[in-house]
Amino acid sequence: MKNYKPKNRLTTQAYIDGVLSGDRVILSRAITVIESNLESDKILAKEIVQGILPHSGKSIRIGITGVPGVGKSTFIEAFGLHLVKKGHKVAILSIDPSSQRSKGSILGDKTRMEELANLQEAYIRPSASGDTLGGVANKTGETMLLCEAAGYDVVLIETVGVGQSETAVHGMTDFFLLLMLSGAGDELQGIKKGIMEMADLVVINKADGDNITMSKIAQRQYQNALHIFPLSESGWSPVVTTASAIKSIGISNVWKQILKYKTLVDKNGYFLKNRNHQQIKWMYNNINEELKQLFYGSKNIKSELSTLEKGIVASKISPVKAAQQIIDKFKNSFENKNYSNEV
Amino acid sequence: MKNYKPKNRLTTQAYIDGVLSGDRVILSRAITVIESNLESDKILAKEIVQGILPHSGKSIRIGITGVPGVGKSTFIEAFGLHLVKKGHKVAILSIDPSSQRSKGSILGDKTRMEELANLQEAYIRPSASGDTLGGVANKTGETMLLCEAAGYDVVLIETVGVGQSETAVHGMTDFFLLLMLSGAGDELQGIKKGIMEMADLVVINKADGDNITMSKIAQRQYQNALHIFPLSESGWSPVVTTASAIKSIGISNVWKQILKYKTLVDKNGYFLKNRNHQQIKWMYNNINEELKQLFYGSKNIKSELSTLEKGIVASKISPVKAAQQIIDKFKNSFENKNYSNEV
Repeated sequence: MKNYKPKNRLTTQAYIDGVLSGDRVILSRAITVIESNLESDKILAKEIVQGILPHSGKSIRIGITGVPGVGKSTFIEAFGLHLVKKGHKVAILSIDPSSQRSKGSILGDKTRMEELANLQEAYIRPSASGDTLGGVANKTGETMLLCEAAGYDVVLIETVGVGQSETAVHGMTDFFLLLMLSGAGDELQGIKKGIMEMADLVVINKADGDNITMSKIAQRQYQNALHIFPLSESGWSPVVTTASAIKSIGISNVWKQILKYKTLVDKNGYFLKNRNHQQIKWMYNNINEELKQLFYGSKNIKSELSTLEKGIVASKISPVKAAQQIIDKFKNSFENKNYSNEV
Repeated sequence: MKNYKPKNRLTTQAYIDGVLSGDRVILSRAITVIESNLESDKILAKEIVQGILPHSGKSIRIGITGVPGVGKSTFIEAFGLHLVKKGHKVAILSIDPSSQRSKGSILGDKTRMEELANLQEAYIRPSASGDTLGGVANKTGETMLLCEAAGYDVVLIETVGVGQSETAVHGMTDFFLLLMLSGAGDELQGIKKGIMEMADLVVINKADGDNITMSKIAQRQYQNALHIFPLSESGWSPVVTTASAIKSIGISNVWKQILKYKTLVDKNGYFLKNRNHQQIKWMYNNINEELKQLFYGSKNIKSELSTLEKGIVASKISPVKAAQQIIDKFKNSFENKNYSNEV
């Protein structure tokens, strides 16, 4: 990668001032810097984030997931419009590590949220691209901080609901909303294990017309199922509601539930505790990713791992011994150099 | 730690031969070597495991969990006796990282399984102690391989059901059994999130006397709840049964369900696929633990991390920048030495 500096970059201070003043054009340009893979941009990005950091954090961060076909973009449009009507400024981001492989994030197609996209009080940004979920999550996380500094007081982060990205979104939001359909069973298999247990709110979407009865039945089933599951550390019992995004039914209730949650977790201290925990965990996730990179990025290691894997499957070497063997090699090369250096 | 070699150690070959011949005394002594923290024992342990490795793997590995009070030791006694009656040789191990802090694994108290403990066809070994869950899991995993090589064709691994150890047990077993009580709700809060979704079989224990009706209701509730959750990769739909371990009711049905599962996963290839996956993951878990040890074990790193954590909570440094900063330091010291070495 060349250390080429794009001509059209502003000064760090200009980005910071622009973002803090809520200038949407500068916000977008700052996010472009965050998303860039150029070395010079990476330095600039860190300085921008550092500058806006004290002004970030003042939003409620809502994760939204659901399998394709559940009506996510329609729901986000209706929900976003409701929030704007209530006087909020809404930023809509997404995490979708698959988007660079042209599978496409729903937000890539802004036209699906035409009305919302045209409002000054809403800011829609499709998913950053990247090779690793960790990289994409970093970019979305920093974009979220920028949006908060620019005055957006509700941040919606959507995820496609078919991979690991839900966990990443859950790890950076205050509230997690799962969209589902009635007539479950088959549809459910698109939802990965563990996602259900993350949900603070399950919304049965498309509860309109002939679907109302089925949706009510599904609501009761999910509510019963969720009650059987362990209580979250937040002290909040997950709620199941029905909605029809396309008819704007049940949308205000979703927001009411979120406010109710916020009141609870502000009072019992979980909100702040969870935020701090998430921020610190964000650092450790990055550290652990980098450590793995340091080890697994080596060519020799890669070919040796593949040999060890074969030996393990053939019961020729135990997993513990295999790990010890390769780590010893890594450490020895490290320590020998250390030693020679000191002589 | 001194490199002191205990006097009463046998030769590697004597351990291997003893284990393979099913000698219980030598099996126990070999496990003691596995559990030892002496450097010389660690080398010996690896040689023993390496020697018996081709003879391991021929059991069905069953994980059993449930909160304290659910009647786990009574259940394991009844279940173990049933298996012995059916002609099986049963090894009973446990993972409990808390046991060294004298919280106590149920298996520490063998007297609770008096009848089973006296049978030649059953081998009971309480949890190894250790500082980390990873270390304890390694020891239990290798003990399991030894028991298999000694001819035990059913291995039960119990866990206390209050921490991360369920995930470790789930990661080393073929089948995961969750013991519960009727009149749920309150008791459930002892079960951590995600445990429920791991279960292949939920057994409502203490389903006797006045409790039968309640247990049947609980069975139906859990069965409904589990149906709502996503299908496992194994293709098996989790089953909920009732049992009374103390009256030996429903125990044979538990074994029937496990055999039914085994038939399914043998046929669809999941059994072998999962075993291979588990073994390889075991290696990677060890590697990743060691890498973390290499980094986090350093004194300088520790004190700097605590400073960075404070900075993050006070919004003075972003998590991404904090991680970059400390990793750069680690890498630089590494690379500089590398460079000096080559000059």
